[in-house]
Amino acid sequence: MQSLWLENQTLSLRDMPHPNKPGEALIRVRLAGICGTDLELVRGYYPFTGVPGHEFVGEVVEIPDASAALSMAWIGKRVVGEINVVCGECEQCRNSRPTHCEKRTVLGIADRDGVHAEYTSLPLTNLHLVPDSVTDEAAVFTEPLAAALEIQEQVHLQPTDRVLLIGAGRLGQLVAQTLALTGCDLHVSARHPYQKALLGARQIRLISEDEIQPRRWDVVVEATGSPSGFELARQAIRPRGTLVLKSTYQGEMTVNWSPFVVDEITIVGSRCGPFTPALRLLESGKVDPTVLIAERHPLSRALEAYEDAKKPGMLKVLLG
Amino acid sequence: MQSLWLENQTLSLRDMPHPNKPGEALIRVRLAGICGTDLELVRGYYPFTGVPGHEFVGEVVEIPDASAALSMAWIGKRVVGEINVVCGECEQCRNSRPTHCEKRTVLGIADRDGVHAEYTSLPLTNLHLVPDSVTDEAAVFTEPLAAALEIQEQVHLQPTDRVLLIGAGRLGQLVAQTLALTGCDLHVSARHPYQKALLGARQIRLISEDEIQPRRWDVVVEATGSPSGFELARQAIRPRGTLVLKSTYQGEMTVNWSPFVVDEITIVGSRCGPFTPALRLLESGKVDPTVLIAERHPLSRALEAYEDAKKPGMLKVLLG
Repeated sequence: MQSLWLENQTLSLRDMPHPNKPGEALIRVRLAGICGTDLELVRGYYPFTGVPGHEFVGEVVEIPDASAALSMAWIGKRVVGEINVVCGECEQCRNSRPTHCEKRTVLGIADRDGVHAEYTSLPLTNLHLVPDSVTDEAAVFTEPLAAALEIQEQVHLQPTDRVLLIGAGRLGQLVAQTLALTGCDLHVSARHPYQKALLGARQIRLISEDEIQPRRWDVVVEATGSPSGFELARQAIRPRGTLVLKSTYQGEMTVNWSPFVVDEITIVGSRCGPFTPALRLLESGKVDPTVLIAERHPLSRALEAYEDAKKPGMLKVLLG
Repeated sequence: MQSLWLENQTLSLRDMPHPNKPGEALIRVRLAGICGTDLELVRGYYPFTGVPGHEFVGEVVEIPDASAALSMAWIGKRVVGEINVVCGECEQCRNSRPTHCEKRTVLGIADRDGVHAEYTSLPLTNLHLVPDSVTDEAAVFTEPLAAALEIQEQVHLQPTDRVLLIGAGRLGQLVAQTLALTGCDLHVSARHPYQKALLGARQIRLISEDEIQPRRWDVVVEATGSPSGFELARQAIRPRGTLVLKSTYQGEMTVNWSPFVVDEITIVGSRCGPFTPALRLLESGKVDPTVLIAERHPLSRALEAYEDAKKPGMLKVLLG
């Protein structure tokens, strides 16, 4: 099969055998997304050698050693897949934190080939059926939409909360759409005109950086992953407010902790989220990620697609 | 009256007039404590000129313009006092966060003379009557005990939680005593033999730094205020665990945020706490802070008392 391959910060197209793992479903990738994490892997921020990519919608083509009933239930069905493949036995798994499994492999990110290929594989327990009414173009966003919903899993967002979102890129747009569903008083700080236009089209209010009142916001979601975004968030949060870090930060940052203690701020790191409610929101149409699609390329043009995805402010580039 | 005075990082004893503020009670200080914050003010970590000290138990001697009923209720009574004097009108006050009042003055810390003097003054609304059964030696700990209880105000501590406390100094000992009341699986990392002896006497379990399992603790309370304590806490906390910062940190620290995001850690800054439950615990004897008393000096020997309080691992030094 044709596949993208990452090694020593270099991407190449290769011809590879199908991924055949015992006990896992073989999945034909129908559509895949390029995400910020993929670009960070290419930049060498995290060590990874293999097939990149973890956002996908696919079709189950084979389940080794499956019963007739299991095969009936899955073969030919459209699926999305949770990216953490877990052991089920470690302390984290036993305590209902499987996404933090101590022995996890992560699709296209850690010790497991990903989805920027014709085929991929995952255990059946990772798969979720995609409702018929959800298009491939929407379903491919299930994973980042779930990551956006992780904020509501972790933080009790009250409808009366004044919420500031800093950053309206690929993930930030999905966070904005889901935060807006809570009825909270949401304002978004966005930099690029088309980011602003997408938010405006959904009646999501924008705020310029110099309009952000200091020490006023109940909840601030930092989705830029930049030190300047973090600093803006720190200044905006009110005493006893909650600052959600919805992006990883490259390298180290120098932080003065005293204001966080004096103002009794809560900081919450936020990563992978729940797929089932993400699919519910896609099915109901309450969230529409397809407006984020900027480009779509066949897998054979994956190298150009990655180059495009790197451009500042670029929204979602799809493969397939 | 005799009073301690801090100016340009230098302490001196002075003769000063009684503090007479309109609408505030004049209080004779019966006993006062020296706290880590007082020592930091002397070191110049925060700018403050005036009478230091904020931990006290006193006796109301005068209330200007008070009705007979008010005077009856307060004059001659033993009191402790909340240290934040607030406006009642700002956004923080109106939203039930008076300790974060935007216009607050803070007893012996910010824009308000403190209690290392024969007399002090506070608004009546800051005062709490001390139950007869609570001795001065116990009541003088009300403020730091309230600060310890602020952890339970902010974080839902479950009886099944595995809780690690790093640091068992003046505040850490009170935190240990209050955390132990939750029934949680508490272990304390202490450095000095007498800190350990005090904890051992209350059947609070100790743990040495090299025994602390990484990524295992549901809640970690960092009470050392040192970068090494912070690093120990970071390593100990489990994915999705809560790290409580119960101490301010001098200057800036370099932090790699990615592990906090990937492990979805919650960090909670924690400062001043509620006086009423602190007094309840003192009255019931569930907490005994008097075991922390290391020395007691008359106010006339306050300079020596501060010198003693600075010694590494020194527990509580009292004045009065």
